[in-house]
Amino acid sequence: MRLRNVRGAHDVICASRYIINNYKDYRGNFKSLFGNLNPIHIEIGMGKGDFIIGMALKYPHINFIGIEKFDSVIVRAIEKLEDLDIPNLRLIRMDALGITDVFDKEVDCLYLNFSDPWPKERHSKRRLTSSVFLSLYDSIFRDKCVINMKTDNRKLFEYSIMSLTSYGYIIDFLSLDLYSDDISDNVQTEYEKKFVSNGNLIYMISVHK
Amino acid sequence: MRLRNVRGAHDVICASRYIINNYKDYRGNFKSLFGNLNPIHIEIGMGKGDFIIGMALKYPHINFIGIEKFDSVIVRAIEKLEDLDIPNLRLIRMDALGITDVFDKEVDCLYLNFSDPWPKERHSKRRLTSSVFLSLYDSIFRDKCVINMKTDNRKLFEYSIMSLTSYGYIIDFLSLDLYSDDISDNVQTEYEKKFVSNGNLIYMISVHK
Repeated sequence: MRLRNVRGAHDVICASRYIINNYKDYRGNFKSLFGNLNPIHIEIGMGKGDFIIGMALKYPHINFIGIEKFDSVIVRAIEKLEDLDIPNLRLIRMDALGITDVFDKEVDCLYLNFSDPWPKERHSKRRLTSSVFLSLYDSIFRDKCVINMKTDNRKLFEYSIMSLTSYGYIIDFLSLDLYSDDISDNVQTEYEKKFVSNGNLIYMISVHK
Repeated sequence: MRLRNVRGAHDVICASRYIINNYKDYRGNFKSLFGNLNPIHIEIGMGKGDFIIGMALKYPHINFIGIEKFDSVIVRAIEKLEDLDIPNLRLIRMDALGITDVFDKEVDCLYLNFSDPWPKERHSKRRLTSSVFLSLYDSIFRDKCVINMKTDNRKLFEYSIMSLTSYGYIIDFLSLDLYSDDISDNVQTEYEKKFVSNGNLIYMISVHK
């Protein structure tokens, strides 16, 4: 799905009121976009948006920005949003490597859900929890750095625990089988729904530094 | 099994040439007991000894000391050792809380295998990876602190990852499913054999600071 071309997706995306096309103009000043001083939470790799839409509806006093690089999936999120009015949600179509050109010390929390595991060792720096990305995140966080991650990929999760803690992050929550724990607060992603119904273990970690 | 009384166990234990009865006499000078300067590795909660015996046979240039507080299980290890001559292995019957009365800056590596999970929150300080024990271990390590842990208990493992990393340990190896990884180096404990045959996941972590 991710890589399939969706006809007309680009035009649909650019025209959506949820999309921030001129996102670089807001660097350091995203609060002006939302018109309030509420915390800003972002999700990198929001896919079809179930998680970020669910979070934005559940927490109206937090501003959410979903980031996704693939037209073919972000367009699905936009379709879901068509008849909804969610003032605390915006989306950006971009590659995460450019994140420091977009945000400057203004993000309060980062979500990484079912990110690409990049299983080959030679691609490890592309993982969103590699030190390459952790050093980018350092400059987008306002004060405390807070990252929440979910995945069903065991090797990515092992790598991420090691990478985050060796980078100085402290673990606040850790589950090696989220669906055996209390998950009354959990908002599912599309992948998560599928993986859970397949019987996969879901891993979760919350860290701060 | 752990708590069952074994008739005559105490006498059998005291009489074994593998047991160090006067262990406090060697504090700070265990190298004299072994008559060499090889590294000293200890296992706290060695149970019936399969792991520590296997390790001592596999690594003759490392000195191993197994620690166990229950007569009823350490006596089983002694029975297994009766016809074996392993000069680099000794056993101590004691409670781990007294570890700093026994060792002083002379241990190179610590193994914690399938330790009691103490599942109740009010007993968490009794877990062998709680900060109470980690602070005791600080004074028994010679130089670098190295801890290797295996368990099939998910909650104990989650707790241990959090406790070890927040205490400053760096993770060198982490497996959330040891038997799906390369385990050519792995030496099994009695519990491990049983748990693996039951299909339980085995978790492993190696850390240093």
